Amino acid sequence: MAQAKLELPVRIGDFTDFFASIFHATNTGRAFRPDNPLLPNYKYLPVAYHGRASSVRASGTAVRRPCGQRKRANETAPSYGASRNLDFELELGFYIGVPSRLGETVPIARAAEHIFGFCLLNDWSARDIQGWEYQPLGPFLGKNFATTVSPWVVTQEALAPFRVAAFARPADDPPPLPYLDDPEDRTHGGLDVTLEAYLASAAMREAGNAPLRLAQSSFPTVYWTVAQMVAHHASNGCNLETGDLIGSGTVSGAERSSWGSLLELTARGSEPIALPSGEKRGFIEDGDEIIFRGFCAKAGYPRIGFGECRAIALPAQ
Amino acid sequence: MAQAKLELPVRIGDFTDFFASIFHATNTGRAFRPDNPLLPNYKYLPVAYHGRASSVRASGTAVRRPCGQRKRANETAPSYGASRNLDFELELGFYIGVPSRLGETVPIARAAEHIFGFCLLNDWSARDIQGWEYQPLGPFLGKNFATTVSPWVVTQEALAPFRVAAFARPADDPPPLPYLDDPEDRTHGGLDVTLEAYLASAAMREAGNAPLRLAQSSFPTVYWTVAQMVAHHASNGCNLETGDLIGSGTVSGAERSSWGSLLELTARGSEPIALPSGEKRGFIEDGDEIIFRGFCAKAGYPRIGFGECRAIALPAQ
Repeated sequence: MAQAKLELPVRIGDFTDFFASIFHATNTGRAFRPDNPLLPNYKYLPVAYHGRASSVRASGTAVRRPCGQRKRANETAPSYGASRNLDFELELGFYIGVPSRLGETVPIARAAEHIFGFCLLNDWSARDIQGWEYQPLGPFLGKNFATTVSPWVVTQEALAPFRVAAFARPADDPPPLPYLDDPEDRTHGGLDVTLEAYLASAAMREAGNAPLRLAQSSFPTVYWTVAQMVAHHASNGCNLETGDLIGSGTVSGAERSSWGSLLELTARGSEPIALPSGEKRGFIEDGDEIIFRGFCAKAGYPRIGFGECRAIALPAQ
Repeated sequence: MAQAKLELPVRIGDFTDFFASIFHATNTGRAFRPDNPLLPNYKYLPVAYHGRASSVRASGTAVRRPCGQRKRANETAPSYGASRNLDFELELGFYIGVPSRLGETVPIARAAEHIFGFCLLNDWSARDIQGWEYQPLGPFLGKNFATTVSPWVVTQEALAPFRVAAFARPADDPPPLPYLDDPEDRTHGGLDVTLEAYLASAAMREAGNAPLRLAQSSFPTVYWTVAQMVAHHASNGCNLETGDLIGSGTVSGAERSSWGSLLELTARGSEPIALPSGEKRGFIEDGDEIIFRGFCAKAGYPRIGFGECRAIALPAQ
């Protein structure tokens, strides 16, 4: 088993990535809109975009630093070169098992029937490329150069003991529209998965330092449940296919220790993190390995691990 | 032959849609930013987003009007229901033949080697759903319910006689960055394809009216060439795969008669178009058939047709 090289568990059709953590959405929106970081649609619908299926790779495949157009605020024109702001995003992913038909919706109460199981997902992001390109149609080259997933699927059935209530919306938040609301989902739509992100620089690995934990977050802090994501995705008749991969978006909680990206943890690189090697990190450097771990633990039940989701950043081509 | 039902010509991996017509980008941006309709990145890079591969269908497959969240400007909260602003987008599409490798770029001078051939493409859009959902990550349910393509592939080789110069950038526009610039592409990167969009309502079909031509546009008016699109797409190492579908974005020219969407042609529905049946159209109504045609014509060469790209809009589920 130790010698097996694990490949992608499914042939991925389409890859959709949500933006379902309100803490992450608030943290990232604050830079642009300090007084009003959340956009008006956020509490009404689970925002998502289409990602790139071709560049999803199983844990262990190195990620080449992308080149692209970047423009600093004080520059009048962009230049093409290696990204200076390579980042990770700590996410939970899930695969569609049972497809839905084009032109038909999926009621939220039946959303779970379409989910096969879960994985860890690193939505690698080049913040400088993303920041320049993303208006008005969203992320493209800033994200589609690589996505890393853990190499096995934790079935939905295995997670049944770890079902918890959905995120408790503050009382003055709007209630979900009927197609996104379900009593069973409110009480059991959350999944008590703990997610962790670690960094090990080349110097750390050489010195025998253990990877440094950068963040530990909890999936039930996410504003939208996976059933809401599925119901919303199919609410316009878009067909879901067996093997589709869906990401939660970065899972960040309220506390700084639970923020699932360097963008958030280092305030866009301005507050670097000290590593045990004496190095500092605002963003990911060449040779750094990013490692995600995920688990469910509860007295009286077997601990469930999600396998590892790890990749080393290679220098730009 | 007449009895054959034509299916999709390839198994589509990823679907990417560009936004390469500067006239379309200006027309659509004007509603949000009257004094400055183009965003700062537009003339530096061919803006694109990832579309949905699973809902691409060959000509002749009816399109069900999507439901979704819509919010009028005078409403305080969105509601879920059938889209009121169903639209088409008149595009040229192309398929990737030879793949590129993850982590490697495609030089613009070699971009053509990766293109298999071309088709017509209708990027069906629900403007009300799109308008409410699209910030900050771009179009999602407003577009992923359906994309229609013509059912055969016009090879790149067949189009060789119809190569023309790339769009002539105004003198004060920034020159393309080196990775998007190629002397051969400047002189021969354009494709002299004429694209047309027609509408036939149910009443028109019943009365025996011919479809009404809504727009006729010319692909060389598009700001970015297909080689620039391919080179940009791979400029960060994103791998292109055999069967990937790439859309140009709506092909609109300078004159109103060449605008490739109802959004543009009717000023967001406020200036409806009169049909021969006495009906009027701000957006697409149930039962309307949208028909695209494309052709290349030049003295001394066989005329090349792109087949039809047609679909009838069905009522919401």
